[in-house]
Amino acid sequence: MRATLLFKPGDIRVGTVPDATIIEATDAVIRVVRACICGSDLWPYKSSDPTPGGRSMGHEAIGVVEATGRDVRRVRKGDLVVMPFAYSDGTCEFCRDGLHTACTHGGFFGGTVGGAQAEAVRVPLADGTLYKLPVREDDALVPSLLTLSDVMGTGHHAAVVARVGPGQSVAVVGDGAVGLCGVIAAKRLGAERIVALGRHPTRTALAREFGATDIVTERGAAAVEGVRALTRGVGVHAVLECVGTEDAMRTAIQISRAGGAVGRVGVPHYAGTPETGPAFYRNITVGGGPAPVRAYIETLLPDILEGRIQPGRVFDETVGLDAVADGYRAMNERRALKVLVAP
Amino acid sequence: MRATLLFKPGDIRVGTVPDATIIEATDAVIRVVRACICGSDLWPYKSSDPTPGGRSMGHEAIGVVEATGRDVRRVRKGDLVVMPFAYSDGTCEFCRDGLHTACTHGGFFGGTVGGAQAEAVRVPLADGTLYKLPVREDDALVPSLLTLSDVMGTGHHAAVVARVGPGQSVAVVGDGAVGLCGVIAAKRLGAERIVALGRHPTRTALAREFGATDIVTERGAAAVEGVRALTRGVGVHAVLECVGTEDAMRTAIQISRAGGAVGRVGVPHYAGTPETGPAFYRNITVGGGPAPVRAYIETLLPDILEGRIQPGRVFDETVGLDAVADGYRAMNERRALKVLVAP
Repeated sequence: MRATLLFKPGDIRVGTVPDATIIEATDAVIRVVRACICGSDLWPYKSSDPTPGGRSMGHEAIGVVEATGRDVRRVRKGDLVVMPFAYSDGTCEFCRDGLHTACTHGGFFGGTVGGAQAEAVRVPLADGTLYKLPVREDDALVPSLLTLSDVMGTGHHAAVVARVGPGQSVAVVGDGAVGLCGVIAAKRLGAERIVALGRHPTRTALAREFGATDIVTERGAAAVEGVRALTRGVGVHAVLECVGTEDAMRTAIQISRAGGAVGRVGVPHYAGTPETGPAFYRNITVGGGPAPVRAYIETLLPDILEGRIQPGRVFDETVGLDAVADGYRAMNERRALKVLVAP
Repeated sequence: MRATLLFKPGDIRVGTVPDATIIEATDAVIRVVRACICGSDLWPYKSSDPTPGGRSMGHEAIGVVEATGRDVRRVRKGDLVVMPFAYSDGTCEFCRDGLHTACTHGGFFGGTVGGAQAEAVRVPLADGTLYKLPVREDDALVPSLLTLSDVMGTGHHAAVVARVGPGQSVAVVGDGAVGLCGVIAAKRLGAERIVALGRHPTRTALAREFGATDIVTERGAAAVEGVRALTRGVGVHAVLECVGTEDAMRTAIQISRAGGAVGRVGVPHYAGTPETGPAFYRNITVGGGPAPVRAYIETLLPDILEGRIQPGRVFDETVGLDAVADGYRAMNERRALKVLVAP
């Protein structure tokens, strides 16, 4: 079958790999209906070590179940399912706590397990991992439903960890797809004021449509001043850090109100978490990590099905599998916000 | 009046300073009945810059109100009061949120405001700051009530920030007075298993009496192994970091369960918060800071008055004001756990 392989920075190609098949009795194989390219895919795209055999890419998919192992009970051939970026058994103590990304038997798609930017994927622990959708594969909601694989659940996680609640002031650092979904999540949870930090005009325009009340286009000290000026000098209750750089985390802590919380979902590309002194003296909490998006599907799904949120609007380009390299280039050059892959 | 002054590392003396008097209409002056020496006083004792005029020390006191400014309404001459280590107006938006240590008009005792290891203290914002106690100054509960100034409230804050709840597993890093009060707080909040990390035998014995179910005497990697061995390898739900060193914070994050929380109340003596990667990938939350002990007095007071908790047992030595230097030495050499000062 065809699958997306990364060989070295900038060198991404569709190659032929062995067909996805059932290996464990708890596996399913899905035919990929829609996959997409994630901001986090750009980190290895820009800086991975060379991989002569190619590294399998992609961790977000909606697919149709083609085959199931003999122990699979909850999904069956023909089901349209959403595949979260991490697989999980759904039964261990961490899954029961709602932290499926810490599943005792879990792991992440891409790499050795096989990626989603492909014709098909082997899904380990299919019963715990896959979520059957109540629509058909040609439904107009498919792009929004696909965001339940990652970005919508991840934005929601940032908001949950940052303890967003009714009436609060919230800042979202980052205008990528996760940041924009963070705006949706903050609004959905009742935030009164939502300040989006970003400078890309089409993205900040979308942030406004998703519910941002204010845009701060500056960075660094000027961004901090900008957010403080909007909040009587005190900062916001909750900050969603959706970038992962040290500068972004520094800004996130500096714009947090005393007693506030930062939910970070950008994969941290820094050693020590900065601003320790200010975070301590101002009692700011920093949390977050890989979002348990599997846990959030049931929470978010009704709002998508009933049209209250439209996270699928983050997709602004679609490529076929053979053109996936164009999609990476477009996202890396920030010409595209998020690219849908239609194998 | 006599007051404790720190001139340079190791050079602490009782000197004569101007009498504490009312300056602002919202001030009170209290005669100090009992003060004490804090673990955090040892940082400047060991490493402050020389202060030729002397730096006023002490931030914990129980006292009797001697005078009040004309705008003071809630306390009056003769009241026995507990003085939290920070003063606060009790009315600003942060105080209303219960974060009195972020009070818009607040600050900390010691230094320019005047310290509590003295015959008397000027207390700014007396109405918001002081809490009237329902006992007499010779009551046997005074030592326990004095801990409401700082260490008991601070241990409680660590537990609150670490989200300690019924049935949970908790680890307390540090066997100083705050750590021991953290054990009390964790038990009071319903923790099922409380692992105290410390190596000083009399302190770990007290930790057991306060409710610790297990003691880990190792440090570093061996301590991490020790806690994991007690928790089926997964770590604890909540960690109370009551030291403030980078090693202690590293241990705290490493022994936290995925999805767990670290409440840090040890003043951080490190730059970036360590273990960013593990904290992120395991969704561990780090929070904490100067405890809003004023907010916690009403919560904790009944348990002290009714004898359910006895945090005053952390005091194992008493000195007169003139012997305060002996008290600092004893704590610095870890011969004393916490020293009561009786002016």
